[in-house]
Amino acid sequence: MVKILTIHGPNLDTLGKREPDIYGDVTIKQINQALEEKASKENIKIEIIQSNHEGEIIDLIARARSKFDGILINPAAYTHTSIAIRDALSASNLPCVEVHLSNIYAREDFRHISLTAPVVEGQICGFGLYSYILGLEALGEIIKSRQ
Amino acid sequence: MVKILTIHGPNLDTLGKREPDIYGDVTIKQINQALEEKASKENIKIEIIQSNHEGEIIDLIARARSKFDGILINPAAYTHTSIAIRDALSASNLPCVEVHLSNIYAREDFRHISLTAPVVEGQICGFGLYSYILGLEALGEIIKSRQ
Amino acid sequence: MVKILTIHGPNLDTLGKREPDIYGDVTIKQINQALEEKASKENIKIEIIQSNHEGEIIDLIARARSKFDGILINPAAYTHTSIAIRDALSASNLPCVEVHLSNIYAREDFRHISLTAPVVEGQICGFGLYSYILGLEALGEIIKSRQ
Amino acid sequence: MVKILTIHGPNLDTLGKREPDIYGDVTIKQINQALEEKASKENIKIEIIQSNHEGEIIDLIARARSKFDGILINPAAYTHTSIAIRDALSASNLPCVEVHLSNIYAREDFRHISLTAPVVEGQICGFGLYSYILGLEALGEIIKSRQ
Amino acid sequence: MVKILTIHGPNLDTLGKREPDIYGDVTIKQINQALEEKASKENIKIEIIQSNHEGEIIDLIARARSKFDGILINPAAYTHTSIAIRDALSASNLPCVEVHLSNIYAREDFRHISLTAPVVEGQICGFGLYSYILGLEALGEIIKSRQ
Amino acid sequence: MVKILTIHGPNLDTLGKREPDIYGDVTIKQINQALEEKASKENIKIEIIQSNHEGEIIDLIARARSKFDGILINPAAYTHTSIAIRDALSASNLPCVEVHLSNIYAREDFRHISLTAPVVEGQICGFGLYSYILGLEALGEIIKSRQ
Amino acid sequence: MVKILTIHGPNLDTLGKREPDIYGDVTIKQINQALEEKASKENIKIEIIQSNHEGEIIDLIARARSKFDGILINPAAYTHTSIAIRDALSASNLPCVEVHLSNIYAREDFRHISLTAPVVEGQICGFGLYSYILGLEALGEIIKSRQ
Amino acid sequence: MVKILTIHGPNLDTLGKREPDIYGDVTIKQINQALEEKASKENIKIEIIQSNHEGEIIDLIARARSKFDGILINPAAYTHTSIAIRDALSASNLPCVEVHLSNIYAREDFRHISLTAPVVEGQICGFGLYSYILGLEALGEIIKSRQ
Amino acid sequence: MVKILTIHGPNLDTLGKREPDIYGDVTIKQINQALEEKASKENIKIEIIQSNHEGEIIDLIARARSKFDGILINPAAYTHTSIAIRDALSASNLPCVEVHLSNIYAREDFRHISLTAPVVEGQICGFGLYSYILGLEALGEIIKSRQ
Amino acid sequence: MVKILTIHGPNLDTLGKREPDIYGDVTIKQINQALEEKASKENIKIEIIQSNHEGEIIDLIARARSKFDGILINPAAYTHTSIAIRDALSASNLPCVEVHLSNIYAREDFRHISLTAPVVEGQICGFGLYSYILGLEALGEIIKSRQ
Amino acid sequence: MVKILTIHGPNLDTLGKREPDIYGDVTIKQINQALEEKASKENIKIEIIQSNHEGEIIDLIARARSKFDGILINPAAYTHTSIAIRDALSASNLPCVEVHLSNIYAREDFRHISLTAPVVEGQICGFGLYSYILGLEALGEIIKSRQ
Amino acid sequence: MVKILTIHGPNLDTLGKREPDIYGDVTIKQINQALEEKASKENIKIEIIQSNHEGEIIDLIARARSKFDGILINPAAYTHTSIAIRDALSASNLPCVEVHLSNIYAREDFRHISLTAPVVEGQICGFGLYSYILGLEALGEIIKSRQ
Repeated sequence: MVKILTIHGPNLDTLGKREPDIYGDVTIKQINQALEEKASKENIKIEIIQSNHEGEIIDLIARARSKFDGILINPAAYTHTSIAIRDALSASNLPCVEVHLSNIYAREDFRHISLTAPVVEGQICGFGLYSYILGLEALGEIIKSRQ
Repeated sequence: MVKILTIHGPNLDTLGKREPDIYGDVTIKQINQALEEKASKENIKIEIIQSNHEGEIIDLIARARSKFDGILINPAAYTHTSIAIRDALSASNLPCVEVHLSNIYAREDFRHISLTAPVVEGQICGFGLYSYILGLEALGEIIKSRQ
Repeated sequence: MVKILTIHGPNLDTLGKREPDIYGDVTIKQINQALEEKASKENIKIEIIQSNHEGEIIDLIARARSKFDGILINPAAYTHTSIAIRDALSASNLPCVEVHLSNIYAREDFRHISLTAPVVEGQICGFGLYSYILGLEALGEIIKSRQ
Repeated sequence: MVKILTIHGPNLDTLGKREPDIYGDVTIKQINQALEEKASKENIKIEIIQSNHEGEIIDLIARARSKFDGILINPAAYTHTSIAIRDALSASNLPCVEVHLSNIYAREDFRHISLTAPVVEGQICGFGLYSYILGLEALGEIIKSRQ
Repeated sequence: MVKILTIHGPNLDTLGKREPDIYGDVTIKQINQALEEKASKENIKIEIIQSNHEGEIIDLIARARSKFDGILINPAAYTHTSIAIRDALSASNLPCVEVHLSNIYAREDFRHISLTAPVVEGQICGFGLYSYILGLEALGEIIKSRQ
Repeated sequence: MVKILTIHGPNLDTLGKREPDIYGDVTIKQINQALEEKASKENIKIEIIQSNHEGEIIDLIARARSKFDGILINPAAYTHTSIAIRDALSASNLPCVEVHLSNIYAREDFRHISLTAPVVEGQICGFGLYSYILGLEALGEIIKSRQ
Repeated sequence: MVKILTIHGPNLDTLGKREPDIYGDVTIKQINQALEEKASKENIKIEIIQSNHEGEIIDLIARARSKFDGILINPAAYTHTSIAIRDALSASNLPCVEVHLSNIYAREDFRHISLTAPVVEGQICGFGLYSYILGLEALGEIIKSRQ
Repeated sequence: MVKILTIHGPNLDTLGKREPDIYGDVTIKQINQALEEKASKENIKIEIIQSNHEGEIIDLIARARSKFDGILINPAAYTHTSIAIRDALSASNLPCVEVHLSNIYAREDFRHISLTAPVVEGQICGFGLYSYILGLEALGEIIKSRQ
Repeated sequence: MVKILTIHGPNLDTLGKREPDIYGDVTIKQINQALEEKASKENIKIEIIQSNHEGEIIDLIARARSKFDGILINPAAYTHTSIAIRDALSASNLPCVEVHLSNIYAREDFRHISLTAPVVEGQICGFGLYSYILGLEALGEIIKSRQ
Repeated sequence: MVKILTIHGPNLDTLGKREPDIYGDVTIKQINQALEEKASKENIKIEIIQSNHEGEIIDLIARARSKFDGILINPAAYTHTSIAIRDALSASNLPCVEVHLSNIYAREDFRHISLTAPVVEGQICGFGLYSYILGLEALGEIIKSRQ
Repeated sequence: MVKILTIHGPNLDTLGKREPDIYGDVTIKQINQALEEKASKENIKIEIIQSNHEGEIIDLIARARSKFDGILINPAAYTHTSIAIRDALSASNLPCVEVHLSNIYAREDFRHISLTAPVVEGQICGFGLYSYILGLEALGEIIKSRQ
Repeated sequence: MVKILTIHGPNLDTLGKREPDIYGDVTIKQINQALEEKASKENIKIEIIQSNHEGEIIDLIARARSKFDGILINPAAYTHTSIAIRDALSASNLPCVEVHLSNIYAREDFRHISLTAPVVEGQICGFGLYSYILGLEALGEIIKSRQ
């Protein structure tokens, strides 16, 4: 059975309350529930963690190597500033998929650069909660195709 | 019934033969077939066109307004150079989704900038043929949710 | 009798429907009608063409040399990306005037650079339909003053 | 009756003598005379002032608010350096039109950037004395259309 | 027998009349004649096409794959703006040689960057008609050395 | 009664010993004492926390939403690198004031850019301990004026 | 008794009428009144001058040296363009404080750079009329602490 | 007896498994062992800590002041992004030496800039495990020469 | 007899008191006296004016045309910001020499760019009072050699 | 009889041994031999010199003026750094042709800029030994056409 | 027995007298003596040369190939400007180590870029004479480990 | 008696023949003669050397320390590229003056940056042969004033 680690980056715990004109009114609970439904439908075992700490996210990725088959990550603000998370993803040797709720290319200039994108399989952005669902689907497909 | 126009940009007609280490060995025929299967499954009517001509792509988008509910586009090289296609997408007033076969953020610097991304709903890249399938899914979802 | 070729660049065929907060609700028909009225008043023979194709616009300019006394052009999105149209205008040896409906300097950064401006007589922007009328006037004046 | 303030920026008092290959041999007197003829033909009351002083130009614009219906300005060199004049034009709440004798986009790089352009209705450049006439026409039209 | 496709990019059809101080007074006919003489001397079969259309040039290159052994191209203005032609050349898998009539490095800054140069065998510029002759020679040599 | 959270960013715990020519010899204890005196005088309830951890600061801000009326923050080095703290401040929906001990604009270039400044009410820098006192005053005033 | 010169830079005389969504509806009279009240409370003698003229502001600063103990300045648009005012402040050898009504870091890019900030004691921005009051307080404090 | 704190930055705990073509197959254990052998030979007391957390590294440096005579640090990815660690090193007032396993100047552009290098004594990179040994040697030498 | 206008730009009236480590302790009076001595020795008639006003300096230059044979100018801070003074010097058609007390290339980056230098005969900087003397000598020489 | 000086720039003496994947395994001897054969066939007298010294290359060019009719140069690494060689070529007043073994536009960014290209007749790169042969041909042709 | 060539770049012959606050008061003689002592201790044969001539340094490196096992180089100022020395080191195929007396990253911006660093094994800077000793040690180790 | 070393940089030996529209028709002999006349009048002993070799110029400067009281240098093209000559001048501890025949600020962009200017006393450019005379005068003055 395919095992996937899902990581929500900084400030995603406040979704719903946070700038709803950008992020919509979906909450992290609703995303997680939708992810779990999708996962069970696709026969994927999923573990979901949110952290505001760059170091914690690196710890999680480092430990994922031996326990998961792939990583679904929304690095949020760390997308644009964290070479350390990039290095962690790259060092994990696992297939990773990067997702974003909003269309980062339609926002401030500093959100147009993703430090993590070059080391993941692919990137999906702009579809709200649905970015995660598509990301899970894509990651599952990649893992299965490589087995 | 939802109607979607799918546009393949320049050089996508040579897929399979073209740099297989970047684009894989999938052909445009196989992508189109997979798209049509997915579309019929999702009850979507789909029309697919490939063009190497920027002007032709603009013509297509301009005419799409009254005939389609959304546009699925892989602008290929024009992603990075065509303000005119960006303007056409923006003028169409239709929901658009941008897809790429390869992970454009893991390639040359000039492929990191998408002129079209800021005016579409979202962008999906890096999953080969599967980018299109996810894009169709996302676009179908958006159109239905707005009806 | 002075003969002027008027060229509308990409996406100008969708005027009226296209982002009316930027371009107003004037249609290309109305612009053409106003231009023809003005032309007949000024005793100018005018021919008007719209094209979304960069290559077609270059063809038009190349052929204009022997048939027209000047070119009135709104290169639209190609203003900012087409060195080929710039070269065509420059090669035509005809006096050219560049017009824009919107004030391109009050919009996105990438619209602040005109590749064609350095090779035309002058540029007029921001006055909607009226930019064309002023452009025709200016171009007529230039042609007459050089005869 | 429409009232328009016309402002000539720095060094325009030396026109005719000043670099005639760029600015032609027209003098400021000739421009003013042409403007007044045009204004009287269009039933516009016009006041014309030249100043080399950035502060004076700002004073003029500040006081224009209650006495004029629009401002026709050639900010000359201050076009490229004066945020203060930009702020003054923007604060005036009057429709403004920016004109230039020469085609500023065919000259040195530092003349390609206009700090005032983003806050005026439109910009006209490259037609010599005629830039002013067209500018007056355009500004008159705008004011009348808004009354 | 070696078969070479020669492509003249935009505005090269107006050679002779076009800015003779930059491009000389040689016409496209004279270049083609010289190329054919050289080709017959070198026992090369040559086909020559001029187009102002980026899309047409891409079509030509795509179809060249199965019919020619190499491409001699003067992409003219598209040299500096067309990632799509670069991708087409790269996808063709044929040896390509890029030529320019003028010394592009002695002209405007935007002509110093060639998007196509990194994917061709080599580049020759500055020798007028003779750039083509040298290019044909070089390309013939490359094709023969690889057979 | 107004409740304000005060956050000291990284390295501010070593104040007094740390580069006294830049930061003076005031200690964090003295700042806190002065803040509490000022707060009690202004009838403000204040809570003060120092952290070297970006993630911890984000946690604090996320939780502040329901417990405080405003945030007084010296993000120190994170001012220039943390989009995540910027997003947290912006997501909090609370009025925030940014303060700095030193005049960051008189120091190294990389300290001239504040990622947090665009999402706070205002910024005060260069007055040492006194920056905090002024910041508290300003923030108190803002909160009261909005009640 | 401490003597402070307060300088209002260009366009501040039109406050209240000028873009109220950015600057609020406070007038320069109200700011001056508030400043004088605050000054008299703090036992400070204050002189207030507004000028749209860069040269005049430099004259004022040059003469301030022998008559004042400090300068409170809102250089407005000259903040971003005047090296001459920077040099004047620096040459005055007086403690200076820079204030801004709006949060200049939340506005256009060209307002993010302050040429004067590196030579003043500190900068306060974003608090409207209150920026001046805090600035007067800070400057008074600095002057007293150095006596 | 000289006491040195050695800090391994983010992702160094996964050495050996992590991209061996860049970092070799040496593990952190082997580095630590080699360091301890070298230290005992040089009569240095050494303490070694690895952390993925920027904040934790700052905490460590802050506390090092009173307990160690110098810091040997491999800031890894934080080298290029952490002004906060730079400030911590600079605030510590201890001699610091920066080391890197790989030659950071032979890798991606973003690894060519070290934010910490300007505040340390010196930098050593490219010698794998041996970078640490040389760094310990250099730091020991510096500390002894200043006693 | 050769007639030369000497212009001292902004803040030069405070010389002697102003940052003596950069500008030395020479006063403007001493410079003027030295200039007049030198002038009388060289049989040159000299007029010297200092102004802090950009507009005034432009006025002076404009009027110099018919009254002087050359201009010796230290534009001070306006060197780096005034296109208007550059245009005035260029429009004057008189030989101009630019001088600076300090070595502007050994100071802040923004002082390395002179907007006026490209339109003067030559530039002399770094020799204090002596820069003026050398400049007068050079200008006198140029004027005489062209008579 | 036409006389041509051929200059090989730095490191070309190690050809064959030097990075054969970039430069091939041709040696400088083989290039010289091929050049001499070609020269004798074209009735050109040729002199060939290799130097690693920028100054020596300048000396050679300076002396070439009176002894040669043209210069064929591969400036190698000095292409990208030597303004002095550019000035020498330009001062020589001889027709010069620049050649490169490798396609410099397909290599590191710093090899894309040629300081010498703007002052030579034309540039040929990417054809290995054959670049020299084509260059000799082109230069011979130019010299003959100008006699 | 391992043989190493040590190259001192430009201006290193004046060490001791040259800016002692940056380079210390150590002389080149002392460095050479220390290097020879270290070499004899490590059983390394060392040859040391200083040159101010870029071409000479390239000559030395070219000839080193057949006579030495590695190169220890302090390219001094040429570090930042010489692509030719970079190419020579790269062409030599020998392991090279780059050393600097001062911490080049704590000095002027133009010293932060090393053109040679990407082609050497590693770089050591900031430890004065000791940088050389560490460099010799590292280079010896590399050579031995590869034998 | 004051002793001054005068250094002419690369390509100055070809003066007179070299691009006379930029450099005039003065020869190096004439400059040297004029310098010697001036020197003897000012009671200065002068030695003059021209070299095209960067390394030779560095050697000359290094040896000047003990034999001369100052250096008058026209680094020509090396002005813009040689950090090594900058370092040599700086290491010499002698007062140096930099001169240029042409106004380098009125020429190509790459000639606007002087690497040597920040380490010399002052710079004089644009006065042809006369730049040297003024430079000698200035340098003599500086040396005498410091004795």
